[in-house]
Amino acid sequence: MRILFINPNTSPGFTEKVRTIATRQAFPGTEITAINPAYGPRSIESIYDELLSAAGTLQVALEHMADFDAFVIACYSDHPAVYALREVTDKPVVGIAEASMLLACILGHRFSVVTTNREWEPLLWDAVHHYGLAGRCASVRSTGMAVLDLESADSATTDGLIIAAARAAVEQDGADVICLGCAGMAGLDEKVSQALNVPVIDGVVAALKLLEGAVSAGWRTSKRLAYARPQYKELDNLPDLFAGPYIRPGNN
Amino acid sequence: MRILFINPNTSPGFTEKVRTIATRQAFPGTEITAINPAYGPRSIESIYDELLSAAGTLQVALEHMADFDAFVIACYSDHPAVYALREVTDKPVVGIAEASMLLACILGHRFSVVTTNREWEPLLWDAVHHYGLAGRCASVRSTGMAVLDLESADSATTDGLIIAAARAAVEQDGADVICLGCAGMAGLDEKVSQALNVPVIDGVVAALKLLEGAVSAGWRTSKRLAYARPQYKELDNLPDLFAGPYIRPGNN
Amino acid sequence: MRILFINPNTSPGFTEKVRTIATRQAFPGTEITAINPAYGPRSIESIYDELLSAAGTLQVALEHMADFDAFVIACYSDHPAVYALREVTDKPVVGIAEASMLLACILGHRFSVVTTNREWEPLLWDAVHHYGLAGRCASVRSTGMAVLDLESADSATTDGLIIAAARAAVEQDGADVICLGCAGMAGLDEKVSQALNVPVIDGVVAALKLLEGAVSAGWRTSKRLAYARPQYKELDNLPDLFAGPYIRPGNN
Amino acid sequence: MRILFINPNTSPGFTEKVRTIATRQAFPGTEITAINPAYGPRSIESIYDELLSAAGTLQVALEHMADFDAFVIACYSDHPAVYALREVTDKPVVGIAEASMLLACILGHRFSVVTTNREWEPLLWDAVHHYGLAGRCASVRSTGMAVLDLESADSATTDGLIIAAARAAVEQDGADVICLGCAGMAGLDEKVSQALNVPVIDGVVAALKLLEGAVSAGWRTSKRLAYARPQYKELDNLPDLFAGPYIRPGNN
Amino acid sequence: MRILFINPNTSPGFTEKVRTIATRQAFPGTEITAINPAYGPRSIESIYDELLSAAGTLQVALEHMADFDAFVIACYSDHPAVYALREVTDKPVVGIAEASMLLACILGHRFSVVTTNREWEPLLWDAVHHYGLAGRCASVRSTGMAVLDLESADSATTDGLIIAAARAAVEQDGADVICLGCAGMAGLDEKVSQALNVPVIDGVVAALKLLEGAVSAGWRTSKRLAYARPQYKELDNLPDLFAGPYIRPGNN
Amino acid sequence: MRILFINPNTSPGFTEKVRTIATRQAFPGTEITAINPAYGPRSIESIYDELLSAAGTLQVALEHMADFDAFVIACYSDHPAVYALREVTDKPVVGIAEASMLLACILGHRFSVVTTNREWEPLLWDAVHHYGLAGRCASVRSTGMAVLDLESADSATTDGLIIAAARAAVEQDGADVICLGCAGMAGLDEKVSQALNVPVIDGVVAALKLLEGAVSAGWRTSKRLAYARPQYKELDNLPDLFAGPYIRPGNN
Repeated sequence: MRILFINPNTSPGFTEKVRTIATRQAFPGTEITAINPAYGPRSIESIYDELLSAAGTLQVALEHMADFDAFVIACYSDHPAVYALREVTDKPVVGIAEASMLLACILGHRFSVVTTNREWEPLLWDAVHHYGLAGRCASVRSTGMAVLDLESADSATTDGLIIAAARAAVEQDGADVICLGCAGMAGLDEKVSQALNVPVIDGVVAALKLLEGAVSAGWRTSKRLAYARPQYKELDNLPDLFAGPYIRPGNN
Repeated sequence: MRILFINPNTSPGFTEKVRTIATRQAFPGTEITAINPAYGPRSIESIYDELLSAAGTLQVALEHMADFDAFVIACYSDHPAVYALREVTDKPVVGIAEASMLLACILGHRFSVVTTNREWEPLLWDAVHHYGLAGRCASVRSTGMAVLDLESADSATTDGLIIAAARAAVEQDGADVICLGCAGMAGLDEKVSQALNVPVIDGVVAALKLLEGAVSAGWRTSKRLAYARPQYKELDNLPDLFAGPYIRPGNN
Repeated sequence: MRILFINPNTSPGFTEKVRTIATRQAFPGTEITAINPAYGPRSIESIYDELLSAAGTLQVALEHMADFDAFVIACYSDHPAVYALREVTDKPVVGIAEASMLLACILGHRFSVVTTNREWEPLLWDAVHHYGLAGRCASVRSTGMAVLDLESADSATTDGLIIAAARAAVEQDGADVICLGCAGMAGLDEKVSQALNVPVIDGVVAALKLLEGAVSAGWRTSKRLAYARPQYKELDNLPDLFAGPYIRPGNN
Repeated sequence: MRILFINPNTSPGFTEKVRTIATRQAFPGTEITAINPAYGPRSIESIYDELLSAAGTLQVALEHMADFDAFVIACYSDHPAVYALREVTDKPVVGIAEASMLLACILGHRFSVVTTNREWEPLLWDAVHHYGLAGRCASVRSTGMAVLDLESADSATTDGLIIAAARAAVEQDGADVICLGCAGMAGLDEKVSQALNVPVIDGVVAALKLLEGAVSAGWRTSKRLAYARPQYKELDNLPDLFAGPYIRPGNN
Repeated sequence: MRILFINPNTSPGFTEKVRTIATRQAFPGTEITAINPAYGPRSIESIYDELLSAAGTLQVALEHMADFDAFVIACYSDHPAVYALREVTDKPVVGIAEASMLLACILGHRFSVVTTNREWEPLLWDAVHHYGLAGRCASVRSTGMAVLDLESADSATTDGLIIAAARAAVEQDGADVICLGCAGMAGLDEKVSQALNVPVIDGVVAALKLLEGAVSAGWRTSKRLAYARPQYKELDNLPDLFAGPYIRPGNN
Repeated sequence: MRILFINPNTSPGFTEKVRTIATRQAFPGTEITAINPAYGPRSIESIYDELLSAAGTLQVALEHMADFDAFVIACYSDHPAVYALREVTDKPVVGIAEASMLLACILGHRFSVVTTNREWEPLLWDAVHHYGLAGRCASVRSTGMAVLDLESADSATTDGLIIAAARAAVEQDGADVICLGCAGMAGLDEKVSQALNVPVIDGVVAALKLLEGAVSAGWRTSKRLAYARPQYKELDNLPDLFAGPYIRPGNN
């Protein structure tokens, strides 16, 4: 099977990190591709950034839709492109935040998310509520780092901040599983797990495993109600590509 | 004071309808402007449509940001542009869905939303949950019409479908207030209210009244945590305008 | 339009403070009146006090019902007179607690309430739950002052305690908006806002703005179910005035 | 032990019914007294009625406070006098609605409340939420009768309406226990239980049993936070009796 | 009436403690018996222990079912034997955890549970949620003791740890009632209550009082839906006794 | 990897069905074994049955613990053996109900569960709440069949009842994904999916896919708090095997 990981920001370093990890963790028959949009923000740290990344993200997804069996939006947020893609295809689509939290549910009783700057705390709590998982979430804790610091800061500092936040989640908030709350943290799961002796979930791996499972089982995204394909409407001054997914009269 | 209503779809008929109603209902000192993006979808009926409308909506908002005291996103959905604008300005911003539901809370015990096609039901329930108002919502009921039908269908049919859905909300679901769940229903509030003898709220008016109040009281959007201005990051292949709102080093 | 602010305690100093603030913040066409009952407790700090204030509060409301377009119960609690008045009139009625919290919802992501003595914490949490806004409330924090201390204590002390509680709400609880949780705190909003750099809402102003909006939009209280006018029943040994609002047979 | 049942309305027929049932069901050592206020409404069907009944209810409670070990407010609502009394005494106090629902929790999985007129549905749902028992409540169903009809209507009609509503709760809403939602329904529990073959709880009996248990175990109402005795404040133009319960300086 | 207390672990010391307390607190006409299974674990500190205790617990209950009017599972957990017994008899059955929390609801606004080792915190939170009482629970706090330490540790140490945890619940978490969260703490209620000046509930007494009330009122466990008697099925290699409770064809 | 499916009832037909489906759907490198206990009930339709199945289920799990990488409890309920096993091993363990619901979350907006007899409705709602997924569940619907009917009834009848219940869930309750709520329904997913055109999830496959993913990613069950290994205690009159998993002094 072929799975497409879309990093919705325009930093090729992130895209490469995602590809490396997903490739390393994939089942033998799984072929991994990772891409990012040609236009948009270098990192995503706000709803504003998310919206600036949306068109480019949808564009790369539409361009590659026929060639893959399943799609990951590799941004640790409740990125709305996940839902837009679920509307336009019945192939399985998942974001790395939702994937990590769902898998945390079978490994422990309450998970915590460790994220970067403090502004992510309310955004990720909103995500947790949107996924319907608030009852399973012990806390969302931030390290104070900016997303792009994850690439530039020396790794001892970075690791220390992440482990400290995770330790507080475990010892003070009652978490027994940690979700690494940023695509840029990909690859740190083992280190944090060893430091704290609890399971630590990398969202890239979680998304990979859920989609490998879904594709192999033959499960498709529901096309009723929430994820029904949208009806055709005229698009003004947008690339033709974006009109492709609509249902047109006489064409279901 | 000056309030900007942004219709995020590209149908000038909707924009005009919003302008007419807001102008009619404004306090004497309030100046109303209504615009729509130059590019994007003609109507918004899905997350996919929302995302296609996002860049154009942000663009018109940014272009007019300095000239207005408050901003309305005049689409009856939990349109993410509301949150993106709250991040980039401290002037009050509201969407017409949230506004109508908040005002319904002081007029009755439980409100229902009457919307167009059935796909909106899960989306508007998500909105209700996101606003934290699920405990006050009796139901979301749809009429089965498409959004653009509101302009083309003969009005007796349209009104009948809306009144029937509202009646079911009141008689079967325990609603005592109705929110008209589509910008295209603007102007029908009196007719529905007379038919059912319950308060009916037009989201355009609700947004107007909340923002007139907020501006006159001097209230601003919080800039802590959720709506903090986002930090600067490079934008690839996007108009320069979009880089304007970021906080840059040494510039708060 | 004419709006009546009813201070349900019998302290004229509170009534005067409410009148001053509401008058200062009103739109040009709004006429403000503030009164308090002729009998009842000097302050309200418990359900017991609330019930002792109930008859006097209803009495002044009924005496002035015909002369006003909307009514405020100016006590920062879930005062049951709000609901009793919604039952007996279709003119808009709101309490200052509910008003402040609803408006906080458009200015931030999570609000906190800062109140006086610690016994108010469970009472105001109950209010938050009753309004259906628990998902938007970060915390209720008390200062330890008694309500009447707000008039007698030197203002530097008072302000310091309020600002300290609000700061804890913002820095520890994740609040990005503060609601001043006592009518006696009216007028302190600017000072607290400047100290903490977040929006601070005075419930008197919030109630004023919601009702100015409701009256100008023509919205009325729903008369179905929860707020239906009560059916006539004999009253034993109560002033005739209280029998006025009942629906009598053959009189709807 | 001595338990005082206070019927907060002024209908002696209701008071007598409560006394009869409580006396019949009491343990040998329990002495039952039932009274009602000297002033107030003949029945309680709204918040407005509740508030008109408040002063008279508190007055009879205060007059008899020293002579009883525990107190029941025998109105099937979330009558605020329950909380006011919990503030002014540490003897156990309970309302018949809360009592019936708590006992329902050990007899079944989900209870329903069967009440009189439809306006009680939202009020009793609010009560259920306030008690924190929404997760255990299958439904609140009304019969359409007025409270006072329970005394005047022929009993076959009354019984039929109550059984029909209870049957719908059981068969359609998944209830497995029924709470009779009006003091005026006292005594019908056996009849309804036989008709439907599920447990049916009379709130008067439930309150009796909880208070017999509490008194015999020596449990008192907590005096911390929510139910702390209120601080003294001057009362204007109210009977002196009402000033009795306040804590005064130097007198805890 | 005759009430059977079943201690589901095999420590006769616990059984004896339960008997002593229940006997001391019973109404004159109540006859108390306390037993424990002949096989199973000496204490219950995990789901694994609970399941090892299940067969023995059911066996003693079935052996004595005809001789008692009501049954207590005297383990402070959401022990599944409570539900199994509710399925196989219509006599009232309650666990001491649920009983203590329900009674706490009439004595205060929010209760906390004080338990032994920290692993009980998530288990008892699950219990609180299962009972539908999460809205009334301020916290679950542990002392760090193992269950069996309650018998062997010197009592000053034990009492001190329990009082310290209860004090934190009251002063930091807003609890105004304490539930003693282990059958092994039975008898400490007065000591803790005197130390903290809040009501403290011993689950053994709470269960006793609820069942004395239920039996005297004639209430039975519902046999619809959740607690319907299970249909007959063959049992492989289990004692015949266990086949007794099933409904067989032609035998309801 | 080697995955053990434990059917907790003693019907070899069910065990065989589980083995067949899991084997057919497994990734190439996965080795499937399916077993059932030597003693216990032939089917599980109540908590009573669950408890009768517990010891046998734990016994087969303990006997095979060293030989497998992950464990499934193949009963569509919140079977407590899942949690007991998570306590005694850090290898991944999942039940088929939880697995199916978690996977439903990525394929649609709201799932419904279709189960056998009506008594399962409250039990499965409790399961949904325990998993923390109530916000994602549209309904639990029953067919009225007994579990063992799934083997004996003619398959046209069975299929028709299941499809009818699923159709009601989709058309009336707003579900867009169906979970087959009984291990005995394994293998019907395609038929139901074709009839209704929505995704249908077989819990056996869902458990398989989650565990294949977890094992390949190296994730283990957390051993902190809820799933900590229980401390040693003496077991009376139980097979020695059951004492194996306890932590003993000096042996972590």
